Amino acid sequence: MRIIDIRECTVGLEGNVANALVNFRDHTVSLVALLSDQQRDGKPVVGFGFNSIGRFGQSGILRERLIPRLRVARDEELLTADGLSFDPGAFAKISMRNEKPGGHGDRAGAVAALELAAWDLKAKLADEPAYQTIRKYFNLSSNSNSADVYAAGGYYYPDDSLSRLQDELKTYQDMGYEAFKVKVGGAPLSDDMRRIESAIAVAGAGKRLAIDANGRFNMRQAEQMAKEIEALELRWYEEPGDPLDFELNKHITEIYHSAVATGENLFSVIDTKNLIQFGGMRAGKDIFQMDPGLSYGLTEYVGMLGIMEASGFKREQCYPHGGHLINLHVVIGLGLGGCEAYPGVFQPFGGYSSQIEVQEGRILPSDAPGFGLEQKENLYPHLQLLSETVDGKN
Amino acid sequence: MRIIDIRECTVGLEGNVANALVNFRDHTVSLVALLSDQQRDGKPVVGFGFNSIGRFGQSGILRERLIPRLRVARDEELLTADGLSFDPGAFAKISMRNEKPGGHGDRAGAVAALELAAWDLKAKLADEPAYQTIRKYFNLSSNSNSADVYAAGGYYYPDDSLSRLQDELKTYQDMGYEAFKVKVGGAPLSDDMRRIESAIAVAGAGKRLAIDANGRFNMRQAEQMAKEIEALELRWYEEPGDPLDFELNKHITEIYHSAVATGENLFSVIDTKNLIQFGGMRAGKDIFQMDPGLSYGLTEYVGMLGIMEASGFKREQCYPHGGHLINLHVVIGLGLGGCEAYPGVFQPFGGYSSQIEVQEGRILPSDAPGFGLEQKENLYPHLQLLSETVDGKN
Repeated sequence: MRIIDIRECTVGLEGNVANALVNFRDHTVSLVALLSDQQRDGKPVVGFGFNSIGRFGQSGILRERLIPRLRVARDEELLTADGLSFDPGAFAKISMRNEKPGGHGDRAGAVAALELAAWDLKAKLADEPAYQTIRKYFNLSSNSNSADVYAAGGYYYPDDSLSRLQDELKTYQDMGYEAFKVKVGGAPLSDDMRRIESAIAVAGAGKRLAIDANGRFNMRQAEQMAKEIEALELRWYEEPGDPLDFELNKHITEIYHSAVATGENLFSVIDTKNLIQFGGMRAGKDIFQMDPGLSYGLTEYVGMLGIMEASGFKREQCYPHGGHLINLHVVIGLGLGGCEAYPGVFQPFGGYSSQIEVQEGRILPSDAPGFGLEQKENLYPHLQLLSETVDGKN
Repeated sequence: MRIIDIRECTVGLEGNVANALVNFRDHTVSLVALLSDQQRDGKPVVGFGFNSIGRFGQSGILRERLIPRLRVARDEELLTADGLSFDPGAFAKISMRNEKPGGHGDRAGAVAALELAAWDLKAKLADEPAYQTIRKYFNLSSNSNSADVYAAGGYYYPDDSLSRLQDELKTYQDMGYEAFKVKVGGAPLSDDMRRIESAIAVAGAGKRLAIDANGRFNMRQAEQMAKEIEALELRWYEEPGDPLDFELNKHITEIYHSAVATGENLFSVIDTKNLIQFGGMRAGKDIFQMDPGLSYGLTEYVGMLGIMEASGFKREQCYPHGGHLINLHVVIGLGLGGCEAYPGVFQPFGGYSSQIEVQEGRILPSDAPGFGLEQKENLYPHLQLLSETVDGKN
């Protein structure tokens, strides 16, 4: 059993939306394909992965550093000890050979795309959805095959209004979502408060609405917002300040009684350890949003869960960033708190396939093998193009 | 005054050396050129920069994200408010448009190459060495035109021995160096102690020898080494553990009485703030090694100095990672503690030009304009190739 080719391409994200800091007009994602020598129905089995959403494709790092290291690895180095299946952790480890410690940024997403493609491949070779493969690999006993899900949206649009925001959330309600997240920090506080109140009017209660400042606020602004929203008892208050400003995060957890959420911009076990040691996160209350697709993949992510659980936190406090099929399987497979969805944006990677239902705020994956990326109609052409026969041979 | 072209290329590093974690055989550096519309002696003035040494070229990030943003900037956005000179900080800021916070890794080096090229250009347009331009820009009063320097080497070689190590340090002594650094952590502790003792025998005293574990040790190993070297009163003990393991660093500063050095793998102001708040660094004693060439450039680096000085540390505690001409000018311009040199390795970027003298452990830059990279004979062909006329026009 061996990998016969490793391919990557860069795919542009559709849409023109903005959070408090970033416009996503020019954002890209790296799609990776691992072509195996195994076949199903006369075709080679291919594992697909991508580096989540929001931090750009990584073609340079993939082509110049990571993929060449995997190409020169011996076949057996990529297999489990018994030689019977692929070992996704080995893909991450080998692709990181001769990399220095620290600097967990772009390369963490590039490694993740490869590692997650190995999970897709492993699940397809076992003829099962990825969440089952993940659950077995880590010896987890959960039987749940659905996850809590909320609709993330409420971005700032070039032509924005409160009624547009309310219409957006109503659309999500019609799809079956019962909890929502909207952006703050991109407008004056009084305007943002009107956005929040308009959103609650649709959501029905503060506990059904989270807000996300995307790290925009300084200490004073983060405090001001905390005081303004204190009585609303929101679902959570996300990334009030810089994701690495542990002092600010700790301060907000001390003055704000509802949940604080953060972690989507921490990409390693050691950064997560620092958040836990220095960031004031509260066991049983605050939300961790690290995203395996930006963080060296599932193997590193499970290391983060280990640090969390050793420190008294529960994995149910985890709602990974990145509303897409890969993280849906991660959430169900690992028994996390839930996942997000971007029903309208970040196509073709964001959101779920048409086979997947949202019912009363919960989401159920299909029984497609792997992450089921092939079932996403607008993503499928990219998968096909990347994995098709080259030079007349597979 | 405007930029007429921005170019980058990837240059391989020569040599086959290894520290405790990394073999540098396949390492690369991104060289960047900013071509201006200004002329000297009938030729366009070109600013050159590179992303220091040790963490790979960044052609993907430069080509796909940073350079396109600079290309669409208006000419005046890259100038100081009076419109009379280039503003290096603006190059960093504009190249980071639409980037998310956190994740200070590969992109920090890519931005740095551009920002430092802007300093080279700015100094050349002022017809002065870069250290003078830096000193004026930040209103610093120092008059020194030399810096403390030590020779960094003592890597693990495929065919290594104690006599090879001693011969290496003697070669550095013959060049005028009086302080040295050798690698540890890549061999059993007893072997490393013999390396250290052999090195001290040449150096003459523990205070002339630093050791560098490159982040290799876990808590127990870091402690063991600290105890073994305690009586030797070494110059410093560098990166005992993971560069982001602030708990480990703090513990070593509590049990080890000589200086600890770290920071070369922290690439942002916020990571530096966390090191200061949580890492146990001691004012007036421990050494900070953040490297502007890996950290978004000089502008971000000066922000790090601001956090340090506001917390009671002195800039004389700074010995930036990266022994090359750019950091020589940074050290003298900003009045830092000193710089390193890699006399034998990391060519063509490592080390200094033949015009530059080392005398009694101090180093003096030449009076070439900018960083004087053109005077480095083995680097010059790369500069020439990158900046030469294309399509018959400049």
